[in-house]
Amino acid sequence: MEKILRILEFIVEIEKLKDITRHTRPVGLNRYENSAEHSWHVCLLALALEDYANAPVDTLKVIKMLLIHDLGEIDAGDTIVYHSDTLQRQQEEKAGVERLFNSLPDELGRELIDVWLEFEAGKTAEARYAKAIDRIPPLLHNLHDDGHSWKKHGISKRDVMTLNGERISKGSAAVWEVLQGKLEQAAEQGLLR
Amino acid sequence: MEKILRILEFIVEIEKLKDITRHTRPVGLNRYENSAEHSWHVCLLALALEDYANAPVDTLKVIKMLLIHDLGEIDAGDTIVYHSDTLQRQQEEKAGVERLFNSLPDELGRELIDVWLEFEAGKTAEARYAKAIDRIPPLLHNLHDDGHSWKKHGISKRDVMTLNGERISKGSAAVWEVLQGKLEQAAEQGLLR
Repeated sequence: MEKILRILEFIVEIEKLKDITRHTRPVGLNRYENSAEHSWHVCLLALALEDYANAPVDTLKVIKMLLIHDLGEIDAGDTIVYHSDTLQRQQEEKAGVERLFNSLPDELGRELIDVWLEFEAGKTAEARYAKAIDRIPPLLHNLHDDGHSWKKHGISKRDVMTLNGERISKGSAAVWEVLQGKLEQAAEQGLLR
Repeated sequence: MEKILRILEFIVEIEKLKDITRHTRPVGLNRYENSAEHSWHVCLLALALEDYANAPVDTLKVIKMLLIHDLGEIDAGDTIVYHSDTLQRQQEEKAGVERLFNSLPDELGRELIDVWLEFEAGKTAEARYAKAIDRIPPLLHNLHDDGHSWKKHGISKRDVMTLNGERISKGSAAVWEVLQGKLEQAAEQGLLR
């Protein structure tokens, strides 16, 4: 009884992810995406592309990673990926997820902290694949939105190719090959300088 | 290559779910929820409450159901649950998901149609549990929002108790017991007439 109440409180607390604004706009919408709807989108993308992961993955583990991967932003806020890789940032997000998961019944809270840490470390097949998937929708958004976010934040072709090439090809070389072609085309069309 | 491109096109097409507006507001936010962020929320809730399902469930199957359960709304729009149970409505949603899933590579498209139909039929342990989970956030929203949506749409205590009691207790009697207590309290406080 008390455990169910704690889970329901957690579920209300994480509503705040719906108010965390990201840096790209969903295709066709005139507003920025929030991290909750992004989390849904990447879960479905991970399901759809799993045959193209570099190594076989535990799909449920991947989905768990993607459902919770942005929860640290509730306390730490969202940062554009090209500026996000600082130690301070990582510590803020870690403290944020610990606050949330510690409010859950013990076993569940510990499992979710472990899954979140595994994703962050990026060393298992599941984490590599999940991190690859996480990078795809922002690329699609920019490709369908005249490079809106790239231009706004002064992101160069080299930035895009380097960061995404590394992150995506580690999880799925086949998917990166397809995206690389699209990005080269975009650069030729002037979406990416 | 061509299959990956088709999957990426599908992923762009389903962005439209982020523009489907529901009838309750996320706790603390002054706007209505969209069906994409709702889909994320119920997936995480299903994970967190799985120990309380009436029967053991295949968690990955449940998550798949919840990731895609609202995709029919892209063509059919959202309807408040208390008015949604018509044959015409079901047919519109089915046509909508068929359009989307038929655009995917064959095997994947067929799997997702089957999962969607299993959810809709509501007969397996997974579908019952997923349908129970789907009902919980709108109740939490109303409970934290002075019964906003109940009042706006003239929903009575009897409507709420009957529909949710049936739907939630079929998937998790334990969770319904907790929620029933909260709803009775809300009715006493005048949130629900």
